[in-house]
Amino acid sequence: MSRALWDRYKQLFQVYEPIGLAIDPSRMAYTEAFVAELAPKFERAFAKMAALERGEIANPDEKRMVGHYWLRTPALAPTPILKKEIEDTVTRIQRFASSVHSGEISAERGTFMHVLVVGIGGSALGPQLVSAALGGANDRMRAHFVDNTDPDGIDRTLRQLEGRLDETLTIVISKSGGTKETRNGMLEIAGAYNSAELDFARHAVAVTGLGSELDKLAERDGWLARFPMWDWVGGRTSETSAVGLLPAALQGIDVAALLEGARACDEITRDTNPSRNPAALLATAWYWAGKGRGEKDMVVLPYKDRLELFSRYLQQLVMESLGKERDLDGKVVHQGIAVYGNKGSTDQHAYVQQLRDGVPNFFATFIEVLRDREAGSMFVETAATGAPGPATAGDYLSGFLQGTRRALYENGRESITLTIERVDPPAIGMLIALYERAVGLYAELVGINAYHQPGVEAGKKAATRVLEIQAKLIAYLESNRGKAFTAEQLADGIGCADEVETAFKILEHAAANPDHGLRRKPGRDPFSATYQR
Amino acid sequence: MSRALWDRYKQLFQVYEPIGLAIDPSRMAYTEAFVAELAPKFERAFAKMAALERGEIANPDEKRMVGHYWLRTPALAPTPILKKEIEDTVTRIQRFASSVHSGEISAERGTFMHVLVVGIGGSALGPQLVSAALGGANDRMRAHFVDNTDPDGIDRTLRQLEGRLDETLTIVISKSGGTKETRNGMLEIAGAYNSAELDFARHAVAVTGLGSELDKLAERDGWLARFPMWDWVGGRTSETSAVGLLPAALQGIDVAALLEGARACDEITRDTNPSRNPAALLATAWYWAGKGRGEKDMVVLPYKDRLELFSRYLQQLVMESLGKERDLDGKVVHQGIAVYGNKGSTDQHAYVQQLRDGVPNFFATFIEVLRDREAGSMFVETAATGAPGPATAGDYLSGFLQGTRRALYENGRESITLTIERVDPPAIGMLIALYERAVGLYAELVGINAYHQPGVEAGKKAATRVLEIQAKLIAYLESNRGKAFTAEQLADGIGCADEVETAFKILEHAAANPDHGLRRKPGRDPFSATYQR
Repeated sequence: MSRALWDRYKQLFQVYEPIGLAIDPSRMAYTEAFVAELAPKFERAFAKMAALERGEIANPDEKRMVGHYWLRTPALAPTPILKKEIEDTVTRIQRFASSVHSGEISAERGTFMHVLVVGIGGSALGPQLVSAALGGANDRMRAHFVDNTDPDGIDRTLRQLEGRLDETLTIVISKSGGTKETRNGMLEIAGAYNSAELDFARHAVAVTGLGSELDKLAERDGWLARFPMWDWVGGRTSETSAVGLLPAALQGIDVAALLEGARACDEITRDTNPSRNPAALLATAWYWAGKGRGEKDMVVLPYKDRLELFSRYLQQLVMESLGKERDLDGKVVHQGIAVYGNKGSTDQHAYVQQLRDGVPNFFATFIEVLRDREAGSMFVETAATGAPGPATAGDYLSGFLQGTRRALYENGRESITLTIERVDPPAIGMLIALYERAVGLYAELVGINAYHQPGVEAGKKAATRVLEIQAKLIAYLESNRGKAFTAEQLADGIGCADEVETAFKILEHAAANPDHGLRRKPGRDPFSATYQR
Repeated sequence: MSRALWDRYKQLFQVYEPIGLAIDPSRMAYTEAFVAELAPKFERAFAKMAALERGEIANPDEKRMVGHYWLRTPALAPTPILKKEIEDTVTRIQRFASSVHSGEISAERGTFMHVLVVGIGGSALGPQLVSAALGGANDRMRAHFVDNTDPDGIDRTLRQLEGRLDETLTIVISKSGGTKETRNGMLEIAGAYNSAELDFARHAVAVTGLGSELDKLAERDGWLARFPMWDWVGGRTSETSAVGLLPAALQGIDVAALLEGARACDEITRDTNPSRNPAALLATAWYWAGKGRGEKDMVVLPYKDRLELFSRYLQQLVMESLGKERDLDGKVVHQGIAVYGNKGSTDQHAYVQQLRDGVPNFFATFIEVLRDREAGSMFVETAATGAPGPATAGDYLSGFLQGTRRALYENGRESITLTIERVDPPAIGMLIALYERAVGLYAELVGINAYHQPGVEAGKKAATRVLEIQAKLIAYLESNRGKAFTAEQLADGIGCADEVETAFKILEHAAANPDHGLRRKPGRDPFSATYQR
């Protein structure tokens, strides 16, 4: 390795003692000229970020403030009322968790030992990340998740809780209160409580927007508690709101430390010098790698099992925030950065082959954790194994990270490396805040709104249309009971001749399940099968 | 939706009744002219595939046969001895599993209830996929995995097994028998058995190449059993060898049905008509999407929780097979296809925003499972909810798949949809075999060797170098006990002045852990910190 590279490393390596973070961007080949070129963009980005933190409308399409930074520093909130609401919510979460732990708030038949989170997307990934990264054998309550509307998936989670629903607290999380997957999960879970002759309301907590459908239901049925989601907190940036804090606090995780880690990181990432600010360093690296147009995928490789979900968390945060059709001026830009990864060194045996030798369509982010485990380690190499010296499993993990980083670099694949001391609540709070800020800054650099998700609606609307067609098909078959029709005949019959493919797919699915009483008779080809009730 | 699209759907939709698979490539916009253009390439690819199946050297760099198809049809094996070895191994696996289940083969203190798999990459992902997809509450033994050399990760798995090691059977899987991560995991796990005053050998089984380091160890120490890995089976295509079958059989999964699913798929994917052969349809779609150069990422979206790991399994199979620097003529081509994805509809709330609106750098693979769950479902919509008709959670899952597929298509994002009846052993065997064949065919279309992984060596070598430098540093500090040095001084001291960055990173990691007795004293900047023993 050249001395020049070490000099570059020394020049670019940044240590942020107060938040336990170091960043090494030396394997991104950007030049000082490039950094200088970005400077005016960063100046505007920091100004926009300051305005956002002051409470200006930072999500123009939805005319909303963007306030996730206030969650960690309530004093920043634009009104005293908001400040108090944030503070009160944290206090209420902590009190609620200790009442549950102490048994003061208890189930019909004893202390709650399990917590089941029903949510999807922004209402699940943060809690799942924190649960996996910070949970363990000593958890106060064991965490379970329903994060989809897959009936079999719901059954599997319920089987883990079989005979234990009476000691299970269910948290239903939906900002809008109308997310269908979450509503479906809730209804299925409530059904399971009922089947076990338990009163769901006495085991249920809602995290949702004030006055939402879910909020009204929880109020009407007298659920154990309701915690607010505010319209100025987006789903993918809601981990430091009740969405993330309540499940974590119940699991026994120190949420105050997590908030403090995020707050400290927010402070450091307000630095308007982009060569010093760690979030700006990330945004610079992303811009460099993909030319500000997302031309390179971001491969995230944390070398630590506990951080395996972090790549998936970032996949959501980055792709949903940055993957936009239009810029702030309405120009079509098709922005975004594709994110994937699991963990090192495991992924070295999965796809580092392609990273090193194959399509050079990515840059890597290595996440290094210095501390191997709580206690000391055995030596897996000693003089007896013929090794040059004693080494632990953790030395290997560390060596593999260095080796892969080098092997990629030698083949012209760029990378950035983050180093943290250990995976604890402040570090997780810090990492979340760091990437929230990096995404916000990058969005400004490329001139897009990071805080809306207009593209999600189209799929939802199309799905609603599918369910409407399904209802028509079933009604039609019902009123022609005993008669058999092909998909094409049925689509014509319900007046949706242009939707025959949709009808065909609905019918195939419905016929494979007993619920709608549909019978399918095979035909000479897939499309002459007939269906009847 | 236009009638023309329905016509295209009808024309391209393929049903493979014997293997319970349907494929819809209608949302890939390829033309008949394109298919005709590929025809001669496919002709060659099928000829090469036939030669491979006959036992010719299909992995030229490593001069190896490629025989994973024989595992499902032993009669194909090029010699009677190989045929018998394959058959005998399956029989031995099934007998071993039933002896363990019956308690005939038992631990010191009773029947084995847990199975712990220690392996990485090709020796872990297949078993993990099958365990997650086909396991459940009724498993004969509960499966656990150590798939990394992360000390904390090993501790977490061991904590799940605390007090239960005496009823835990550990399978160590390593083809070469020399994979360091697996070796480290094995040593740590053996250490845990010893600490619990249990004889590891009486709880251990090896799956490895005959005569490997691991094989010798298992023989010497008298492990419970040893099962062979052959040099003609690659790690990423080893699921239908002992690597995958043994853990599955122990878990209680019907491995004969899984093999039969794979065999039946092999038969169908030998069809040399590329418009009918489902593996060729996939290869055609991939070639079309990425122009035979991997220009588009493959996003894999199975709408079924049980299949969540399938995308990761494919990530390995596809990227390690196709991500190659050179073609078969030695020309630098930087091939590959990046693969990512988790599951639908969950991922709709994570990154479908970007898929629909953002960088158009991908194509999608939807995997639809017709059967929702074993029993019937409750209705989450009824007349009472104001819905147009009754609907189940599964109807929503199905509707979301259709809706997202349509929303992507409307914005010019291509997709291919696979439909299966249910997630059962034959279906998993079929999917594995289908993608193995698709990868093999695609590799021939673009002229690369799908069966080696030369790029992985560089990272391993670099890691070995890191561990050598570590040994030197520790020895140097030991012989200068009590004296403190900076990283630069130490690199000079051990005669590795060009490796000062490596030394610095080793020292920072070692100082964060107690094992090597290193003490770090901070300096005025990160690089003037000193280290001593």
